[in-house]
Amino acid sequence: MNKQAFQDGYPEELSHCYGCGSNNADGHQLKSYWLDEEEGETIAHFTPKACHTAIPGFVYGGLIASLIDCHGTGSACAAAYRAEGRAFGSAPALRFVTGALNVNFLAPTPMGVELILHGKVTEIKERKVIVDITLSANDVVCVSGSVIAVKMPATMG
Amino acid sequence: MNKQAFQDGYPEELSHCYGCGSNNADGHQLKSYWLDEEEGETIAHFTPKACHTAIPGFVYGGLIASLIDCHGTGSACAAAYRAEGRAFGSAPALRFVTGALNVNFLAPTPMGVELILHGKVTEIKERKVIVDITLSANDVVCVSGSVIAVKMPATMG
Repeated sequence: MNKQAFQDGYPEELSHCYGCGSNNADGHQLKSYWLDEEEGETIAHFTPKACHTAIPGFVYGGLIASLIDCHGTGSACAAAYRAEGRAFGSAPALRFVTGALNVNFLAPTPMGVELILHGKVTEIKERKVIVDITLSANDVVCVSGSVIAVKMPATMG
Repeated sequence: MNKQAFQDGYPEELSHCYGCGSNNADGHQLKSYWLDEEEGETIAHFTPKACHTAIPGFVYGGLIASLIDCHGTGSACAAAYRAEGRAFGSAPALRFVTGALNVNFLAPTPMGVELILHGKVTEIKERKVIVDITLSANDVVCVSGSVIAVKMPATMG
């Protein structure tokens, strides 16, 4: 596994995201990595805090959606750099935002254990990347989702 | 507009959700109301904190997904009570969880203004309610989404 998280390669000014920005002290600071770069597979780990509850004992869906969102855009960014044959983070910076997010809650996600997100890049075009993601707890897939990531509009930068 | 928020009618033990639980001091405490009960329309307002940023100046998608999620399950609950001809919160308690969440980010959502969520119940069955939701800022619809809410499994209660 590559040791640098995608999110740690974002430009400083684009590292404030509550979900994954290394400059957001209040946020989740999700870290995503290549699991298998050749196959377009990525991984991230996250352990929810006690406050991230839904019904007591289970993780609230909004956090799960957030993790899938940020793992998706990070994976899309890495895939786009790779498709261009460039090192992650090299200038000019590539950064993706979410166009659409779909989340299917297959089983309640338990609190108190580490969650594992697996991403798989299923489509890659110059301005759009699709990433399918599963979230597992205790080796059970609790959630599946997909992120349609689009290259960040110039109006946002 | 009815003055009691749906979430304030949830049973105490089911009011810990990070997104909308009145017993979660760390969470968002989203409050949803009927806008037009006859038409199945609901409304909620939320002003993000400064930390809820994505790219600076814009709201991060995970928060938006959370708001849509909780407004959807709250609206579903209210619609289910209404369909049964029962007062909201009356025993036995009805509570819905999210089966699927779809979010389409149509335009960047600006920070620093109140966000308005409009819900519309589009399908209601005994165990499943579908709610379509838009999120607006400055009178512009920035996000559309839908929540397929399902009656809470007995294993979660």
